[in-house]
Amino acid sequence: MIMKKQKSRVVMVGKIPIGGGNPVVIQSMTKVRTADFEKAIKQIIDLEKAGCEIVRLALKDREDLKGFKKIKSKVHIPLVADIHFDYKFALMAIDCGADKIRLNPGNIYKKEEVKEVISALKSAKIPLRIGLNSGSVQEPGSSRMAMPDKLVESALAYIKMVEGFKFHDIVVSLKASNVIETILAYRKFASVCDYPLHLGVTATGFPYAGAIKSSIALGVLLLEGIGDTIRVSLTDKPTREVYTAKVILESLGLRSFGPEIISCPTCGRCEVNLVKLVNDFENKASSLKLNPIKVALMGCVVNGPGEAKEAEIGVAFGKEYGLLFKHGKAIKKVHFSECVDSLLKEMENKHG
Amino acid sequence: MIMKKQKSRVVMVGKIPIGGGNPVVIQSMTKVRTADFEKAIKQIIDLEKAGCEIVRLALKDREDLKGFKKIKSKVHIPLVADIHFDYKFALMAIDCGADKIRLNPGNIYKKEEVKEVISALKSAKIPLRIGLNSGSVQEPGSSRMAMPDKLVESALAYIKMVEGFKFHDIVVSLKASNVIETILAYRKFASVCDYPLHLGVTATGFPYAGAIKSSIALGVLLLEGIGDTIRVSLTDKPTREVYTAKVILESLGLRSFGPEIISCPTCGRCEVNLVKLVNDFENKASSLKLNPIKVALMGCVVNGPGEAKEAEIGVAFGKEYGLLFKHGKAIKKVHFSECVDSLLKEMENKHG
Repeated sequence: MIMKKQKSRVVMVGKIPIGGGNPVVIQSMTKVRTADFEKAIKQIIDLEKAGCEIVRLALKDREDLKGFKKIKSKVHIPLVADIHFDYKFALMAIDCGADKIRLNPGNIYKKEEVKEVISALKSAKIPLRIGLNSGSVQEPGSSRMAMPDKLVESALAYIKMVEGFKFHDIVVSLKASNVIETILAYRKFASVCDYPLHLGVTATGFPYAGAIKSSIALGVLLLEGIGDTIRVSLTDKPTREVYTAKVILESLGLRSFGPEIISCPTCGRCEVNLVKLVNDFENKASSLKLNPIKVALMGCVVNGPGEAKEAEIGVAFGKEYGLLFKHGKAIKKVHFSECVDSLLKEMENKHG
Repeated sequence: MIMKKQKSRVVMVGKIPIGGGNPVVIQSMTKVRTADFEKAIKQIIDLEKAGCEIVRLALKDREDLKGFKKIKSKVHIPLVADIHFDYKFALMAIDCGADKIRLNPGNIYKKEEVKEVISALKSAKIPLRIGLNSGSVQEPGSSRMAMPDKLVESALAYIKMVEGFKFHDIVVSLKASNVIETILAYRKFASVCDYPLHLGVTATGFPYAGAIKSSIALGVLLLEGIGDTIRVSLTDKPTREVYTAKVILESLGLRSFGPEIISCPTCGRCEVNLVKLVNDFENKASSLKLNPIKVALMGCVVNGPGEAKEAEIGVAFGKEYGLLFKHGKAIKKVHFSECVDSLLKEMENKHG
């Protein structure tokens, strides 16, 4: 086995278990004001449809709190209230039925305040995420530490305080905006502590570059068995975060959500417009419920027949016709123009 | 150090060194017929502008050969001729001045043929890429091996044959369409052999998913010190492959090509249209020659000031005004509408 899942405790967020070898959970966050509950509900429903399993919302004032209450009454997916600066909003969010509270040790750290929040979490039987970010982490002690150490030391100090209140229902995140720092922080933490980990890179920049940064950091960590839930932060719409998270988990063989597409990058050997074909296929396939089978769309005879045979269904093109393969056997010749429909028909035939 | 570069030999492709601890080289491939030399030249020039350092072209018939000759006379970037099935095109490409030849052991493997190619490579003093792909790899021996072993064993057998001809000017690639198989193949190979490695995942599917797959596989391997040159295969235009490769290398701190952008994913706390700002910034910045400094574009006061201070230049927004930071110090208040121009001006001031 390439991946040996590190053993972590289990924490329940609503009905969703995080940690302890359960499937890695996908989270995202709404990007409208929580006070604006109609828009927030729409985003949450879109997120749920896209495959999101836990949604976090920022809660920063009384208007947001009212919104949160409304939203909570309308949706079923577990909701996490994201609290900064004022611990009282954590208490109020718990009263409104939040399924988890996220506190940032960078801006809520007074012992008495944390104690009150923990007491309310215990009564409500809901967990806490101790969520550190490179942008708001406090220096523990006086020396100047490297960012990964700063995140880990700050998290451990906070955990010690919370454990002092006899509370262990904890998820931890240690997000840096730098890929290497993020990897180092999580690795170090996982080597000394068994609380489940929420993985993410923060403030990742342009959306496409952000997806690349998250893919590397989360890929490296998950492959080492580190990480129980993930959020891909992108300066983009929230459903894009979920799609990216799904592709990362699928690429690592950790979960599967639909057909896996194999297609060649095309080159001077390709005599059909494969980019168009792949796009058409994606457009048509995305509206159908398809099983997680492997589909190969290949532009020429070098790697085409091989990949097409390895896949459950595939096509390898010559000039304008392709050979359609199913379970390793060539079954018919198809014209470029009818290829997508033929493939989808075969996929439906197969899985009815 | 998180990365310990594995020691590999050095191979020269034109004036570009690959291996031996040299910077990881970015490659791509033209996606028009090589025979269609005007289009190919245009693509090569675009690739070079985008930051590509070596370009590969498919060469499959006499028309392509004529095209290759024309192209070679017009461009300066090293060109690799990609040869399949017919070894004679390798001989002819060498005559035309190719800077490297790629052979696929899956379809050119007869001892006498390979010997002739090696002899021509020796005379021309140019290297060979032994390029395996999961879609065309031949089963070495009779037993059914797992894909990573099949790729490695097949490569080693081919290398043995080539070394038998006293030739060592070799780069190796072992591309699978599956992320985990790709990682396992390269890891295994790197543990037994010190030829420089060309990394890539093949046939990656939808372009966005392909970028994610490549980011994970190349990220994991490069972080382990494995890999000397990379190609990100995408079913997309070639310059996109180069951009993706650059972001991967930058994220790992291996190379830097321009400003590093840090921006938050936005949430219910953000009161400006940060997605628009980030896009505007990307559009304007991409046409300027900017130094590789760190720029933070942050939507609120939670992580904003922290990230903005860590960056060389940054802005953290409140309602419609943001605070501009330079070298950790707040220098002025800027309105949302003029923020991008202010930032770019400060960046130019700094680096003249």
